[in-house]
Amino acid sequence: MKDVYISKAVIKRLPRYHRFLGELAKEGVERISSNDLAEMMNVTASQIRQDLNHFGGFGQQGYGYNVRYLHEEIGNLLGLNKEHKMVIIGAGNLARAITNYYGFKEIGFLIVALFDVNEELIGSEIKGIPVRPLSELSDFAKKEEIDLAILTVPKDAANAAAEEVVTAGIHYIWNFAPTELIVDRKKVYVENVHLVDSLLELTFEMTTRPIKESK
Amino acid sequence: MKDVYISKAVIKRLPRYHRFLGELAKEGVERISSNDLAEMMNVTASQIRQDLNHFGGFGQQGYGYNVRYLHEEIGNLLGLNKEHKMVIIGAGNLARAITNYYGFKEIGFLIVALFDVNEELIGSEIKGIPVRPLSELSDFAKKEEIDLAILTVPKDAANAAAEEVVTAGIHYIWNFAPTELIVDRKKVYVENVHLVDSLLELTFEMTTRPIKESK
Repeated sequence: MKDVYISKAVIKRLPRYHRFLGELAKEGVERISSNDLAEMMNVTASQIRQDLNHFGGFGQQGYGYNVRYLHEEIGNLLGLNKEHKMVIIGAGNLARAITNYYGFKEIGFLIVALFDVNEELIGSEIKGIPVRPLSELSDFAKKEEIDLAILTVPKDAANAAAEEVVTAGIHYIWNFAPTELIVDRKKVYVENVHLVDSLLELTFEMTTRPIKESK
Repeated sequence: MKDVYISKAVIKRLPRYHRFLGELAKEGVERISSNDLAEMMNVTASQIRQDLNHFGGFGQQGYGYNVRYLHEEIGNLLGLNKEHKMVIIGAGNLARAITNYYGFKEIGFLIVALFDVNEELIGSEIKGIPVRPLSELSDFAKKEEIDLAILTVPKDAANAAAEEVVTAGIHYIWNFAPTELIVDRKKVYVENVHLVDSLLELTFEMTTRPIKESK
């Protein structure tokens, strides 16, 4: 499975495969055909076969995919077979919402500290997790071996915060600030969350094929 | 441009095209070739040509795309040429973060009310926007001609809340609750935000092609 080239489009679909396969596994389904999975996921069977072929024939002609095996293998690719220690930079409302979302811990993603520059927030706790001064990030990250930083600072503070993250030796940023971070891509990988994009997919539907009032 | 079939994959890319074209327009760029746009956006020129062909030859061979025109046309498709009135169901931390995000108003998306069932929140305000009892949603939505509802309630409350939204005659739900809503798809279109998916794309990178420490 190593050194396999997988396009970003396929990678983007993996979490969804993982979610659906997890549901099936939970329901006790042992095998599923690409046709049945396709119908469930509202995609074509040929796309599923093409996508899952990247991982080397989990499926067998006329026999279907082994649900539990495929779920686990994709989970491994997504890094779900180990724990990740995360910090949040920016202890505002979004940080609060993320910290309170129990779903991360469930899959092994632990928020171990929040960082901020606001003196009023430093020293407080969110769900028992302390808010620390940003100046302590570097020492903390090295000592605690932090994997990734969640950036929830305002747009204007984003690049300065990203610089602190890079200095702290953290190589992965999950960025909620609505701006393109200017960082050395050899040192840090950035995954941007563009919330507005998802809203615009909705208004595309609204605009191009509106639901008619049916009474 | 009417009745054109556009696949979900292309729709998903439209907001990003719109963003990049907006940046170019702001910088005063009038025309751009598919090759230059491709390099900027880190995709292939052939994908760009294929995608933008859906909208009927905005580009001319050897001449490039008209940046401002294409930006506006895609904006129209995304519903950005008019205002949208939104309500938020569930007045917790995520609602607070969304309400405080100035970016929505900038593009014509107005949050006009929040709704909750928690007596302690009802009557309070978030950024000057009142939190109302969920029982008033139906009357309010009809009177104010609400386009879409943002669902930020916990997983267990999501389907009951979605039912209230449908009863209120709102046809579009932007769903942050981490669950598949069970609604009549003829009456309501749901766009799910799977935040965890985006985090897993990041940990896929971390797992399959980790950044090596370079000192």
